[in-house]
Amino acid sequence: MLFLIGLGLGDERDITVKGLEAIKSCKRVFLDAYTSILGVDKGNLEAYYGVAVTVADREMVESAADPILQDADTENVAFLVVGDPFGATTHTDLYMRAVQRSIPVRVVHNASIINAVGSCGLQLYSYGPIITVPFFTDNWRPDSPYHKIAANFKAGMHTLCLLDIKVKEQSEENLLKGRLIYEPPRFMTVRQAVAQLLESEERNGLSVCTPSTLGVGMMRIGSESQKIIVGTMSELLEVSEDMFGGPLHSFILPAKDLHEIEFQMLQLYALPNSVIKSVTFADYNKH
Amino acid sequence: MLFLIGLGLGDERDITVKGLEAIKSCKRVFLDAYTSILGVDKGNLEAYYGVAVTVADREMVESAADPILQDADTENVAFLVVGDPFGATTHTDLYMRAVQRSIPVRVVHNASIINAVGSCGLQLYSYGPIITVPFFTDNWRPDSPYHKIAANFKAGMHTLCLLDIKVKEQSEENLLKGRLIYEPPRFMTVRQAVAQLLESEERNGLSVCTPSTLGVGMMRIGSESQKIIVGTMSELLEVSEDMFGGPLHSFILPAKDLHEIEFQMLQLYALPNSVIKSVTFADYNKH
Repeated sequence: MLFLIGLGLGDERDITVKGLEAIKSCKRVFLDAYTSILGVDKGNLEAYYGVAVTVADREMVESAADPILQDADTENVAFLVVGDPFGATTHTDLYMRAVQRSIPVRVVHNASIINAVGSCGLQLYSYGPIITVPFFTDNWRPDSPYHKIAANFKAGMHTLCLLDIKVKEQSEENLLKGRLIYEPPRFMTVRQAVAQLLESEERNGLSVCTPSTLGVGMMRIGSESQKIIVGTMSELLEVSEDMFGGPLHSFILPAKDLHEIEFQMLQLYALPNSVIKSVTFADYNKH
Repeated sequence: MLFLIGLGLGDERDITVKGLEAIKSCKRVFLDAYTSILGVDKGNLEAYYGVAVTVADREMVESAADPILQDADTENVAFLVVGDPFGATTHTDLYMRAVQRSIPVRVVHNASIINAVGSCGLQLYSYGPIITVPFFTDNWRPDSPYHKIAANFKAGMHTLCLLDIKVKEQSEENLLKGRLIYEPPRFMTVRQAVAQLLESEERNGLSVCTPSTLGVGMMRIGSESQKIIVGTMSELLEVSEDMFGGPLHSFILPAKDLHEIEFQMLQLYALPNSVIKSVTFADYNKH
């Protein structure tokens, strides 16, 4: 049996009881490499689960003759994923290859950013499609995320922006010299996302991400150091990176029209000096 | 401290370790009434968690002087919710009232249908807004869900349809006579949803939910008896209610264009005699 087990969003104790019991029944336990990059420490997991854990990088997971599925028809194997197991295509692919080899698969679901984002108070039923904001480079500054936000905005929907993660990057020099030396991982911050979206607004002028547009910074959601900060785009740009704190960050652009309870929740999380603090719901909905 | 704890989608062992530890620290434990209706048995929860559990109906949760928040500033209280705590406005409201009374609140997230739906293989990033399909009555047969599906379809997005639940309904006779006698709860099945959407298609003719449109029935997702059935709308209409099995059901209308891995996953779950079984990906994407 192959178990695909979601670890949730925080630390080793965010696994479900069912997931923990499954791990304890397994001969071999693999941890998606992406997970360990996020800071869920392999040592902590091993100590808490009482099993040895092998970090599996993308190449290992995607190879057809992978060591994960080997003998999984006769013994229990666990593959651990941060959040929920079906967040990435790679895991869907692993699932399908197991089924094709007649290996029984069981999925143990857990929280992911896609539902935990509900903690900012914006109703989950009012989100449009999720978007990803990639790091701008000197000569690649795409406005496509901005246009997707604009489409959601027009449809009266909130937008969850997942922010870029760069791992296993090589510097140009190392790449040219063929040296497999990787740069430290980079995680986009709310501040960087806000700056990029303001730049796209300047180029496009659709009044979707202006300096006075409201935004919601979601930091380390689901972990014990979780933080939510609400303010206008220009206010968020003034918040120090220290105040936001470490990765992962996500960013939400609320729909123009809010329900009263959504508005009140945003006020709750607003920066102490934010203009939103002094606006009534009635005034807000007049825009 | 008030703990808002998600129970996940299956049984009492789908709680996280963190959630279970929190419950054991609590003086009082409440269970959202909606949860118990779903079949998570209060007795099972009490036996497994080792604590007494009080079922809290909507009125109790929403009353300002509710017994839930009472003394929650000096002792630990847990409020248990099926899925993730922020699925319903009621819980957001409870959260906010706690914060307003300076009661510390901690949220323990868990899986909900919104991310567990990923198990059918359709990528979570390609979903448009979630919709709800309400029971048609003799004189109220709204086409609004159909039009929302049409908007997602046009935007190239999948649609997750949450299916109606009717609880605490009174018959017309009992309502007129003021008798607080409630009808048994009703849960919409995939078959009923398909029939309603085909009816809307006939009235509107946008070719969004035709008899040959592909649909995904998702039954009891996240529980051990989970089942996924893929077929055309007309094929799904022929599947017996017994084969779908008990509640809860959800329904997905995939986008017109699929990624290859999405297509393969749908084939995996297709009815043995479904037309989709004999179609290649290349042919499918020609429509």
